[in-house]
Amino acid sequence: MATLEDIGVSAAINILSAFAFLLAFAFLRIQPINDRVYFPKWYLAGARTGSPGSAGRGVIGKFVNLNFATYFTFLNWMPQALKMSEAEIINHAGLDSAAFLRIYILGLNIFVPVTLLALLILIPVNVSSGTLFFLRKDLVVSDIDKLSISNVRPKSNRFFVHIGLLYAITFWTCCMLYKEYSYVASMRLRFLASQQRRAEQFTVVVRNVPRASGKSTSDSVDHFFQKNHPDTYLCHQAVYNANKFAKLVRKRDRLQNWLDYNQLKYERNPEKRPTRKTGFLGLWGKQVDSIEYYKHQINVLEKRMALERQKILKDSKSILPVAFVSFKSRWGAAVCAQTQQSRNPTLWLTNWAPEPRDIYWRNLAIPFVSLTIRKLIISVSVFALVFFYMIPIAFVQSLANLEGLERVAPFLRPVIELHIIKSFLQGFLPGLALKVFLYILPAILMIMSKIEGFISVSSLERRSAAKYYYFILVNVFLGSIITGTAFQQLDSFLHQSPTEIPRTIGVSIPMKATFFITYIMVDGWAGVAAEILRLKPLVIFHLKNLFLVKTERDRAKAMDPGSVAFAETLPSLQLYFLLGLVYAVVTPVLLPFILVFFAFAFLVYRHQIINVYNQRYESAAAFWPHVHSRIIASLLIAQLLLMGLLGTKKAANSTPLLAILPILTFYFHHYCKHRFEPAFRKYPLEASE
Amino acid sequence: MATLEDIGVSAAINILSAFAFLLAFAFLRIQPINDRVYFPKWYLAGARTGSPGSAGRGVIGKFVNLNFATYFTFLNWMPQALKMSEAEIINHAGLDSAAFLRIYILGLNIFVPVTLLALLILIPVNVSSGTLFFLRKDLVVSDIDKLSISNVRPKSNRFFVHIGLLYAITFWTCCMLYKEYSYVASMRLRFLASQQRRAEQFTVVVRNVPRASGKSTSDSVDHFFQKNHPDTYLCHQAVYNANKFAKLVRKRDRLQNWLDYNQLKYERNPEKRPTRKTGFLGLWGKQVDSIEYYKHQINVLEKRMALERQKILKDSKSILPVAFVSFKSRWGAAVCAQTQQSRNPTLWLTNWAPEPRDIYWRNLAIPFVSLTIRKLIISVSVFALVFFYMIPIAFVQSLANLEGLERVAPFLRPVIELHIIKSFLQGFLPGLALKVFLYILPAILMIMSKIEGFISVSSLERRSAAKYYYFILVNVFLGSIITGTAFQQLDSFLHQSPTEIPRTIGVSIPMKATFFITYIMVDGWAGVAAEILRLKPLVIFHLKNLFLVKTERDRAKAMDPGSVAFAETLPSLQLYFLLGLVYAVVTPVLLPFILVFFAFAFLVYRHQIINVYNQRYESAAAFWPHVHSRIIASLLIAQLLLMGLLGTKKAANSTPLLAILPILTFYFHHYCKHRFEPAFRKYPLEASE
Repeated sequence: MATLEDIGVSAAINILSAFAFLLAFAFLRIQPINDRVYFPKWYLAGARTGSPGSAGRGVIGKFVNLNFATYFTFLNWMPQALKMSEAEIINHAGLDSAAFLRIYILGLNIFVPVTLLALLILIPVNVSSGTLFFLRKDLVVSDIDKLSISNVRPKSNRFFVHIGLLYAITFWTCCMLYKEYSYVASMRLRFLASQQRRAEQFTVVVRNVPRASGKSTSDSVDHFFQKNHPDTYLCHQAVYNANKFAKLVRKRDRLQNWLDYNQLKYERNPEKRPTRKTGFLGLWGKQVDSIEYYKHQINVLEKRMALERQKILKDSKSILPVAFVSFKSRWGAAVCAQTQQSRNPTLWLTNWAPEPRDIYWRNLAIPFVSLTIRKLIISVSVFALVFFYMIPIAFVQSLANLEGLERVAPFLRPVIELHIIKSFLQGFLPGLALKVFLYILPAILMIMSKIEGFISVSSLERRSAAKYYYFILVNVFLGSIITGTAFQQLDSFLHQSPTEIPRTIGVSIPMKATFFITYIMVDGWAGVAAEILRLKPLVIFHLKNLFLVKTERDRAKAMDPGSVAFAETLPSLQLYFLLGLVYAVVTPVLLPFILVFFAFAFLVYRHQIINVYNQRYESAAAFWPHVHSRIIASLLIAQLLLMGLLGTKKAANSTPLLAILPILTFYFHHYCKHRFEPAFRKYPLEASE
Repeated sequence: MATLEDIGVSAAINILSAFAFLLAFAFLRIQPINDRVYFPKWYLAGARTGSPGSAGRGVIGKFVNLNFATYFTFLNWMPQALKMSEAEIINHAGLDSAAFLRIYILGLNIFVPVTLLALLILIPVNVSSGTLFFLRKDLVVSDIDKLSISNVRPKSNRFFVHIGLLYAITFWTCCMLYKEYSYVASMRLRFLASQQRRAEQFTVVVRNVPRASGKSTSDSVDHFFQKNHPDTYLCHQAVYNANKFAKLVRKRDRLQNWLDYNQLKYERNPEKRPTRKTGFLGLWGKQVDSIEYYKHQINVLEKRMALERQKILKDSKSILPVAFVSFKSRWGAAVCAQTQQSRNPTLWLTNWAPEPRDIYWRNLAIPFVSLTIRKLIISVSVFALVFFYMIPIAFVQSLANLEGLERVAPFLRPVIELHIIKSFLQGFLPGLALKVFLYILPAILMIMSKIEGFISVSSLERRSAAKYYYFILVNVFLGSIITGTAFQQLDSFLHQSPTEIPRTIGVSIPMKATFFITYIMVDGWAGVAAEILRLKPLVIFHLKNLFLVKTERDRAKAMDPGSVAFAETLPSLQLYFLLGLVYAVVTPVLLPFILVFFAFAFLVYRHQIINVYNQRYESAAAFWPHVHSRIIASLLIAQLLLMGLLGTKKAANSTPLLAILPILTFYFHHYCKHRFEPAFRKYPLEASE
């Protein structure tokens, strides 16, 4: 078990590496050549076009910052990040980003008072109990444990303090959650109301349009809505399966880019018209004038596109059983989105149309029965993934076990027998298999969500976030507390009584505090500092710039602003809430580490949202109900685990006091769900005129 | 444990008592004097007014049936009960009753093939295994057990037959459930569409109307709906707190009845005008002419009523924050009922208005926060009631323990010390306490549901039925299988692992088959036969007839047709489904008993619905989703218990095959819920023109 010194060393390492990242960032961001990596949002917003002030400087000045004064103010991005007001952020980056930052504010609001309270009250109570001083020396106890609940004597009345504090924390957390939920809900309603008259606010997406014989989908949509919404129906837009057409468009864009490149080349060097060969990749064949060649190719392609277009419009098979139905008023759309249209509730399913950027086109035409089956399959797979993901990895690892590999692929034997390769395989591959899996996990979860059949990118990301949360909860939180794979945990849980499970977990919680403190510093401090450095986009941008960029359009394309990856950031954020709430009464010294994380990450993400990220869609904070309910779940977990922990401490006279807390918490959730969730799911008629 | 002979004796007793009830019924129902007890529905329908054919008979013939030929056809009510077609029943008794009868048909549809299959396949498999023949003699084994799964050797491959059969049964049950759900849903939609233009189809009940300062509730409702539903809003009806007025109305009715009685008396005997005294109960005071006296009293009362009426209409406090809002079209009402009206989702809550008979007026004005708290309190109480109901009863029983009683009420000592009373108290009271509790249980559950705050009588009954079902499931089903109070069960479950619980229950299931066979015969055969006899209404009607009836109106009032008490009949019916499904593969000889119950009860209830019951409201089969999902729950329970049972039989190679069945069943439920439930909760716009 780690001592205070170990933690000190770990803290020093992490703080130093965080500082190293920040210094590197401060140095790199003021180099004009990196401008498109660290300020892409401003390019997209149109506020910057070339490098700033590049006009006044020489060729070197275009790539390297020569104004040495700026090097001495390397932390000045922090106050800058705080300058912009929330309303400006909503305008600049959208409501999703602003609501995402509210999560950090919520974290600070919850944990600043909780930290103060817990440290001031619990540490004296725990330290003065001093049970652990009397324990046998050979049972290794860390110094951290002396500050934790482990230090309190079994059957002690001091546990009433812990329980009282958990009540106070629950109450405070619920207050903050309520306040924040109501704030975000009103923010959302204001945002929706303030938007200019945008098409999606008058539009409903209709799925599972039944195929009537002798009638086109378009006609039956028209007929159905003229009959059932006679006063408000305006028009509809059918959806075509235009994958082939889209391929042609992409090809045309590629050719256009080559044309631009060649024209630019010709302009710069008017003596020599650029030429190319007609064969594969321009490597052989007849030499032709490039500009003429591409112009001709584009012409040919445009004719083919026109033909393809005609074909799609004529062919009834290419019309999907989906339509976007527009109404004369928001009221009409709100009515249609919220009501059941047909006697058969699996037909004519209506929902608010997501905004065009947000639509995931592939899933629009999935029939209802297929959706049910997909959901079944995916729930089973998620369960299997969460609990049995170690099995395929263990299989890969056993392959890396060389005898196994030789048996599977005997022809590899001479290679494997080489000494270097052998040691590489045995030492490195097993770890690599796990790393690769964890790296591609979000992508796997996203594919699963896509199979599940949601029709907007935002809901896909929310579903992936949910799956990732389960994975983290089981494999990071529980997996660290109870050693052993998730599968072994599941097995032991199935064979334990329901009252035994919180005890098993509860009893090992205090012992894992040092592990989680280290985890927070690595993932939460150094990890966030690495986020601001954007190492991967930086490298990729410069590589693209060197090898691929031909025109200005290419350079804009090479710029990858990225976005807040909700599917990954939300679950890991929720893990911090969980850790904070669970350890608040158990090992309160963990709390300051979490506070530092929230404050630092808030600054970093605020900076990134203002300067870097470009959200691909706007869901108007539709993820907030999930954030809210997962924090409530964390509260419930904290309460259950404290009950289990106290159960092992024989605090029979105080534990029953805790039993009422989960019930109250659950009903707080129930109330909030009814009070606020409709604002995120339905659209009040009152607001739509 | 009961032998086959014991069951034979029990069967004989129950069949005989059932026959005795049927004979008594056959005798009593053809007596004209009982006509209003056994055919009240026809009086209410207006098809009968006096006793049938009483004109042609003498004074005796008015009370006793002298046509002896009718005595020999005592079972002829059975074919009569079957004659009426379903469409006629819907017209005659409403859709609720018709759908209620469909439950019995569903039972027969499910269990006739299941019984045949199980008996033909399982009995040979079980009997030929013959493990129990080799067991030690002193372990008492009944003959029934030789036909059950207990007779199969552990680790036997024959368990594949049982598992295969459970798959077949699950598949068949799901098919039938699907067919029936779709049938009932279409019945409901047709019923709603076929009804004449009735007010409630154009009306929405709006609750939680906010109080605006300086505006009456009525004005704000008008303003709100004219703004948000400008095209379809017609008018609204405010709801007044008129309890005082209602009291006056009841008083007026009472006086009117006395007036009628006296006028009748005067008509029969024109010489003497009836008189009464003005004092308390007419016992003393001044002698006055009765007719004049009542006429005067009614006049006075009507003036007071007019005043009270004015007061209510003027006083803004007597207007509740509730209104019935009517629309110009069904479409408008359907839209309003399904959409969220206000930005704050706890205000302006809209629902379809229940029909006037169905409204539970007291609950209309409960505010939203109060509703949440009520729900919390009631869920906790239901849990306590289900698991701890034995505690207060044990307390009462301990009071009946005479020392306790003497201590509480010392003045009773001389009475208690009497020998007869002492033995009566000790022998009878403890049992009585339990009986009284079980008798008033439905009333208690109904009161709980009322506190929960539902606004229609039909939903109150559905909620009570749900609570009663949990009670039966825990205390009758599980309570009989695992001996011990529910509280002890809960305690032992909490300390067992989740995989252990189905085993504990599963292993004792085959042993309880004989108990449940007896239960079915007592409750399902003799009990249903007693239902048709209507002993309680019969006695009460004749008592009222003797002592209270003064006028023809009184006689009509004394007639108590009753109704299908959904709150009690649905849960006990669902118990039969549960027993049938659980025992189908375990002890198939139980199935024929259930079949007899379904067939017999179907006949009896069909007769009662045609001739007796008068439903107080029409919810258009709104209870069907509950019936459906409880049968699914029974399937799941049966599957889990078989898994547990096989677990104890060490059938490790066959049990895993079962694991997939609950998942499939659950998703069938999920699919049905989406496919059919909206028909019972929402109203498609398509159907409303």
